[in-house]
Amino acid sequence: MHKYGKQYSLKAGMPPGTLIHVGVRKKDKIQITEFNYSEDGFEEKEIDGPALCSLDIGKPSVIQWINVDGIHDVGALETLGGCFGLHLLVMEDILNTEQRPKIENFNEYTFMVVKSLSFDRQMGEFTTEQVSLILGKHFVLSFSEKEDNLFNPVRERIKHGIGRIRKSGPDYLIYSLLDIIIDNYFVVLEELGEKIEYAEDELISKTSLDTLQVIHKLKRQMLFLHKSVWPLREVIVSLEREETPLISESMDIYLRDLYDHIVQIMDTTETLRDILSSMLDIYLSSISNRMNEIMKVLTIISTVFIPLSFIVGLYGMNLKNIPEYNWPGMYPTVWAIMIAIAVFMLAYFKKKKWW
Amino acid sequence: MHKYGKQYSLKAGMPPGTLIHVGVRKKDKIQITEFNYSEDGFEEKEIDGPALCSLDIGKPSVIQWINVDGIHDVGALETLGGCFGLHLLVMEDILNTEQRPKIENFNEYTFMVVKSLSFDRQMGEFTTEQVSLILGKHFVLSFSEKEDNLFNPVRERIKHGIGRIRKSGPDYLIYSLLDIIIDNYFVVLEELGEKIEYAEDELISKTSLDTLQVIHKLKRQMLFLHKSVWPLREVIVSLEREETPLISESMDIYLRDLYDHIVQIMDTTETLRDILSSMLDIYLSSISNRMNEIMKVLTIISTVFIPLSFIVGLYGMNLKNIPEYNWPGMYPTVWAIMIAIAVFMLAYFKKKKWW
Amino acid sequence: MHKYGKQYSLKAGMPPGTLIHVGVRKKDKIQITEFNYSEDGFEEKEIDGPALCSLDIGKPSVIQWINVDGIHDVGALETLGGCFGLHLLVMEDILNTEQRPKIENFNEYTFMVVKSLSFDRQMGEFTTEQVSLILGKHFVLSFSEKEDNLFNPVRERIKHGIGRIRKSGPDYLIYSLLDIIIDNYFVVLEELGEKIEYAEDELISKTSLDTLQVIHKLKRQMLFLHKSVWPLREVIVSLEREETPLISESMDIYLRDLYDHIVQIMDTTETLRDILSSMLDIYLSSISNRMNEIMKVLTIISTVFIPLSFIVGLYGMNLKNIPEYNWPGMYPTVWAIMIAIAVFMLAYFKKKKWW
Amino acid sequence: MHKYGKQYSLKAGMPPGTLIHVGVRKKDKIQITEFNYSEDGFEEKEIDGPALCSLDIGKPSVIQWINVDGIHDVGALETLGGCFGLHLLVMEDILNTEQRPKIENFNEYTFMVVKSLSFDRQMGEFTTEQVSLILGKHFVLSFSEKEDNLFNPVRERIKHGIGRIRKSGPDYLIYSLLDIIIDNYFVVLEELGEKIEYAEDELISKTSLDTLQVIHKLKRQMLFLHKSVWPLREVIVSLEREETPLISESMDIYLRDLYDHIVQIMDTTETLRDILSSMLDIYLSSISNRMNEIMKVLTIISTVFIPLSFIVGLYGMNLKNIPEYNWPGMYPTVWAIMIAIAVFMLAYFKKKKWW
Amino acid sequence: MHKYGKQYSLKAGMPPGTLIHVGVRKKDKIQITEFNYSEDGFEEKEIDGPALCSLDIGKPSVIQWINVDGIHDVGALETLGGCFGLHLLVMEDILNTEQRPKIENFNEYTFMVVKSLSFDRQMGEFTTEQVSLILGKHFVLSFSEKEDNLFNPVRERIKHGIGRIRKSGPDYLIYSLLDIIIDNYFVVLEELGEKIEYAEDELISKTSLDTLQVIHKLKRQMLFLHKSVWPLREVIVSLEREETPLISESMDIYLRDLYDHIVQIMDTTETLRDILSSMLDIYLSSISNRMNEIMKVLTIISTVFIPLSFIVGLYGMNLKNIPEYNWPGMYPTVWAIMIAIAVFMLAYFKKKKWW
Repeated sequence: MHKYGKQYSLKAGMPPGTLIHVGVRKKDKIQITEFNYSEDGFEEKEIDGPALCSLDIGKPSVIQWINVDGIHDVGALETLGGCFGLHLLVMEDILNTEQRPKIENFNEYTFMVVKSLSFDRQMGEFTTEQVSLILGKHFVLSFSEKEDNLFNPVRERIKHGIGRIRKSGPDYLIYSLLDIIIDNYFVVLEELGEKIEYAEDELISKTSLDTLQVIHKLKRQMLFLHKSVWPLREVIVSLEREETPLISESMDIYLRDLYDHIVQIMDTTETLRDILSSMLDIYLSSISNRMNEIMKVLTIISTVFIPLSFIVGLYGMNLKNIPEYNWPGMYPTVWAIMIAIAVFMLAYFKKKKWW
Repeated sequence: MHKYGKQYSLKAGMPPGTLIHVGVRKKDKIQITEFNYSEDGFEEKEIDGPALCSLDIGKPSVIQWINVDGIHDVGALETLGGCFGLHLLVMEDILNTEQRPKIENFNEYTFMVVKSLSFDRQMGEFTTEQVSLILGKHFVLSFSEKEDNLFNPVRERIKHGIGRIRKSGPDYLIYSLLDIIIDNYFVVLEELGEKIEYAEDELISKTSLDTLQVIHKLKRQMLFLHKSVWPLREVIVSLEREETPLISESMDIYLRDLYDHIVQIMDTTETLRDILSSMLDIYLSSISNRMNEIMKVLTIISTVFIPLSFIVGLYGMNLKNIPEYNWPGMYPTVWAIMIAIAVFMLAYFKKKKWW
Repeated sequence: MHKYGKQYSLKAGMPPGTLIHVGVRKKDKIQITEFNYSEDGFEEKEIDGPALCSLDIGKPSVIQWINVDGIHDVGALETLGGCFGLHLLVMEDILNTEQRPKIENFNEYTFMVVKSLSFDRQMGEFTTEQVSLILGKHFVLSFSEKEDNLFNPVRERIKHGIGRIRKSGPDYLIYSLLDIIIDNYFVVLEELGEKIEYAEDELISKTSLDTLQVIHKLKRQMLFLHKSVWPLREVIVSLEREETPLISESMDIYLRDLYDHIVQIMDTTETLRDILSSMLDIYLSSISNRMNEIMKVLTIISTVFIPLSFIVGLYGMNLKNIPEYNWPGMYPTVWAIMIAIAVFMLAYFKKKKWW
Repeated sequence: MHKYGKQYSLKAGMPPGTLIHVGVRKKDKIQITEFNYSEDGFEEKEIDGPALCSLDIGKPSVIQWINVDGIHDVGALETLGGCFGLHLLVMEDILNTEQRPKIENFNEYTFMVVKSLSFDRQMGEFTTEQVSLILGKHFVLSFSEKEDNLFNPVRERIKHGIGRIRKSGPDYLIYSLLDIIIDNYFVVLEELGEKIEYAEDELISKTSLDTLQVIHKLKRQMLFLHKSVWPLREVIVSLEREETPLISESMDIYLRDLYDHIVQIMDTTETLRDILSSMLDIYLSSISNRMNEIMKVLTIISTVFIPLSFIVGLYGMNLKNIPEYNWPGMYPTVWAIMIAIAVFMLAYFKKKKWW
Repeated sequence: MHKYGKQYSLKAGMPPGTLIHVGVRKKDKIQITEFNYSEDGFEEKEIDGPALCSLDIGKPSVIQWINVDGIHDVGALETLGGCFGLHLLVMEDILNTEQRPKIENFNEYTFMVVKSLSFDRQMGEFTTEQVSLILGKHFVLSFSEKEDNLFNPVRERIKHGIGRIRKSGPDYLIYSLLDIIIDNYFVVLEELGEKIEYAEDELISKTSLDTLQVIHKLKRQMLFLHKSVWPLREVIVSLEREETPLISESMDIYLRDLYDHIVQIMDTTETLRDILSSMLDIYLSSISNRMNEIMKVLTIISTVFIPLSFIVGLYGMNLKNIPEYNWPGMYPTVWAIMIAIAVFMLAYFKKKKWW
């Protein structure tokens, strides 16, 4: 599998609307859960393949939430999509995990694709998971790539009737799901912030090529984060502008709150990227500085000893008739000259602030 | 606690509108002061917890200003919010000190979050404090994170009836509070400007890695300043456009004045950032220059003495039959050759402008 | 032929609308194929030069698709353009293979120029080919520069009646042709992604100037890709906005899908460019690091041995009256001094973390 | 006084509209001159403090231009502002010389702040002066910071009735004043262009750290110029759009001409900044090149002589039983070996194009 | 004369509308040619100074094109401008050759300033010439700075009635003139592209400071080209939007074609600038690489021989009692040790991939 450029090319040449699962293949069965809830009650059931065909759709008095964990069973999803009258291209988008976050308003439903992040502490990286949400008049469909019980907190709130959720419509449910996804961005940002802080401390104490690669890895993470957040912001903005009648006006303040969170995430991302950039600058400067320091040591030692070595070499010559050879006080004189040269050199370097 | 990435993640998974104080925890009691003033008179009182429940709200003839110093007492703030009918999400924003500056217009009131700066000379950094302002028809609420009597000058003006304040409405009070906050930005900018000037002087006299870190610290400060000012500008623009009926038309020139100040702050910030960038350039160039200078010294000394050392080594050989050994004038000849080489070398380097 | 700046200048001074083929000249005959299809049937024929003049144009019940492979036969194309009433400047654009992708709406037809990419594995580069498309009320004309059977998959779908194509109008045919072209972008991106990944692995193991040139070649490829995709996006946006009555409303979701693909291509392109940029940074840093390492080795060896060489030179002097010469334990003493100096030096460098 | 960050902070905490002169304090009296002119005649008088109170304002048949040189006499300006009914915040802006260029339309008058530049050849820098202009129905007020007779050419044209000025209204007068200010920008640009050209010539002949500082000083000058011109452009655009009835339609072509000049100034500024940037690049490259050259000399000399020095050292050993010592032709053989090594080395470096 | 900053400052202080020729002064007479043409016939005459006053203006049935080569005769141009009722500021713009390309719509005519480029192969640079065009209801005026017969191809087409030109109005004539100017941009781009290609080849074979200066000169050329094209694009866009009734709707497709050419020029310019930027990167990297290589040679030679020189120095000492002196096999032992050291060193550097 390729890291960049994705395996999207598999689809080249196929007629549009051909359903293929683009993503990491898995063998397990996918898990489909149906929630039916209203202010008065609540019902949860697992749906099996065959049961899919007999789904009761659209009782106005109750809200129907169908949550799908895993999207690799093309057949089951096709059946489900058929029940709710989803367009083939929508189904194609749900199955293709390389989608960019986006929102599309249809007559009967609104379709959203977002990325949910989770931080993998062992890898020291965050992983992304594609979540597709469909908001209908009386139903909500949510498709997530992995079986990680992302939406458990919402499930609990529905079960125990905590907060406004059971008293509100499917738009509030969609908001709650998005809120959970966006809150996870803060968790990831916090982990990355911690790693950056750690790298910053390390940067000051030592400068190895490893530090550079850590900085670049973090930069790339921030880049991917940035690329996930920007289109997500557009999704929220589109929801906030109430471009669809499926969102009631009372959701306004909640969606504005989501928007504020997104902006804050983008802001923090920018700040962290700026910090990483200035860390790179410091890294490069400290390499230069270190080189300078090495050169200074070499130059001081060399330039002090090279003239001295010349002098001792001079009096190592085997020529006849070198008068100094026979002067009695020559040896101390040579030492005096050499010490004078060394002191002068060191004083010169001192003046130049080399040490 | 983390420097970046904040501890916002605490809230992940909680239902929206859950009130939690996000920020540095404090133990002290918060201090709530109520001002009631009109053109004719003025009344100031401290409010205790129980008294909160019996606040007189909204007498049209007088303006009621409730100033809260400290926001860590969730209970008291919840009561206060209840009295004035604030939305739970607004209360959540007041308590969360990691908010971005913003403005939100509700039917009954306008809610603003801004950052107040103060310069900490000991740290050599500025610190930010979140100030939340609520403008109602007859009342103004102000919440500040710390007990630093930020708004004392306004208090004095109300007490002594200086200027237009007692003759004007709550919109003028809001303007006065914002004016004080924005004026503090100039104080911070001036301090940072002074530090930059100092770093600039230091840069010319010496180039250590410390200077680099000072420059980067100042760059980061300018970055944070920039990030505080931009959304603040949007707040003022939104006020100026009179998107709410709570701002009367006569405030126009005052708000335009605030806007001018903001733009001037942004301008100065940009200039200081540009100066810091060119300081970085100079820093890096002067490192290269220094390296150059070191290399020159090494090269001059080495290349002058290396041939000389070779010559004296040559005549230190113990081979038989070296004819020069027995020539009588050989010693002065060797000296002559060596001086000639040295002079030639030095002249060459002189021509190359190495010294 | 020139790589940059193109040979467009040939046309300087000629009256506008003069038909000249601007591009690589070829000798072969161009190949013109006519498809007539409707829901019920399908007919395919090769058209020869003379037959061009008697083309049946515009039977409303069938869709006529004329595909031209090769555009170097100006005469044949002029005849064809005349049959369909194309403007001379449109013909000029079809013949000039240096066009930027664009769309132009005329009363009777819509004219599009796009670039089709294909990856040449031997060269390790992608090549571009200009494809001109003309959408009329009952006909579609497609002109491609090379005879590479680009549109074979569509041909097959028409032949075997796969998918919606036979049931839909010329707008769906145009969409199918664009879809094939855009899918090829993914193939190219994937190949480039693979090459980048390979270069990245190589970057870590060694840093030669070759790596640099590979990075720069890839950067340039990404740049050209970027320049092909941006105007293509505008073409799709213009189609999506239904600025021409030739596109029916039911195409909306298909064109939105094309648009999503384009955005995804642009996104991936940006990501790959960012990765290449950070590879350049790493490359430059690793050169600096390597220099540092070389300098360290030189400095350690030099500075350890230079004082030692001085000492042995000192006692190689031929002066009379050097008292040490006659001390019996002098030789081991000299060794001891030299070992002490070496140990001290190495300890000093160890402390400085040079090795 | 601080170079950056300004002393604006003096005003923090004061009620808005408090008149304080922010700028370099001066002791001299300010000079107020009144011009009354119409197509038929012309009258000029100096106004003293007391006379300020009895100014005749607004005779429709004549145009009244009051020019104030020096703004440090707060009292006189306050009286003057009172006569013409200027808002306190406008007076505050006139007195504060740290204003950004801006335009504000009031009901009775339009208020403009612009920066006038003049080049100080001794300092090699330009200095800025704040000029405030007020355009009323029958009057124009102009306030300039220094007494430099900036507007003398206009005065002369009024006196001698040159051009359209006496036949036109106050809007033409305002245009004439702005035209003079903008023309001064060209003078400054020309001086800076000359300095850049000089620095460019110097750059090629030598590369000292001084050149770098000259470049950076020029860059900063261009930056400040850029920051003065941008808001000035907005002032002119606002005038051109005739957002105030005080500008008649016949001024259109004149204001468009001003706008063209501004755009040309901005354009030249950009070009000069680009040239300075590439000069920086050349500076940095030539440092690297010089380092390279130094290294080459060191390396050639060292690597040629180091092996030779080894050989002569070898035959300086005092070991017994070195057979070469007694070979008769050994001395010329050693010379031959050494010359061979030197020639080989030099040929190698020649091949590498080191010299 | 100054290269940058221009001599525009000559005009500072003069009343607006004063006609002065700003540009390189010339002595020759300017050449004014009048063309009168219609579908039926064609007349060409040279106009002398006096004849200017009796020009027949505006016979609706024929199109009058007056082409002026050379603009340094202020008197003649003033007379001509008077005949056609041109505004004084327009005349000022025609005479000032430092204008930015622009378009201005007046009631009676449309005024355009554009830059015509021509490549000077000897200088290796392009030169610009200002061309002013005035489009009236029945006439076209064209003013070009130099006498270079720029518009000869159009003249020929009129003379011989080639193409649509004699059948179309003055708007088509303006289009033809602009088309010729824009086609010249392609010629210049091609020449620059060739020079860039050449510089690129040279860059790989050697890296001298000359290459750097060639790159920077080309970069500056691209910068000036970019600055000429951008405002030209605005001129074409303004024409295309038919903001004046002087352009008939049938010109639409021709102007769109011009616009496409401009966009293609801008595109190629951007590409060439990107290529120059990456050439700079490669240049800087290859300097670093070369330094690295030099350092490696120095380090290998030095570190191999320094220990060897120490050893031979050691046994050159004149101390008594050095036991090794008398060992019979010492000389070969020393050689063995030295060869071992050299082999070890070289193996170490081999492992480090230094050679």
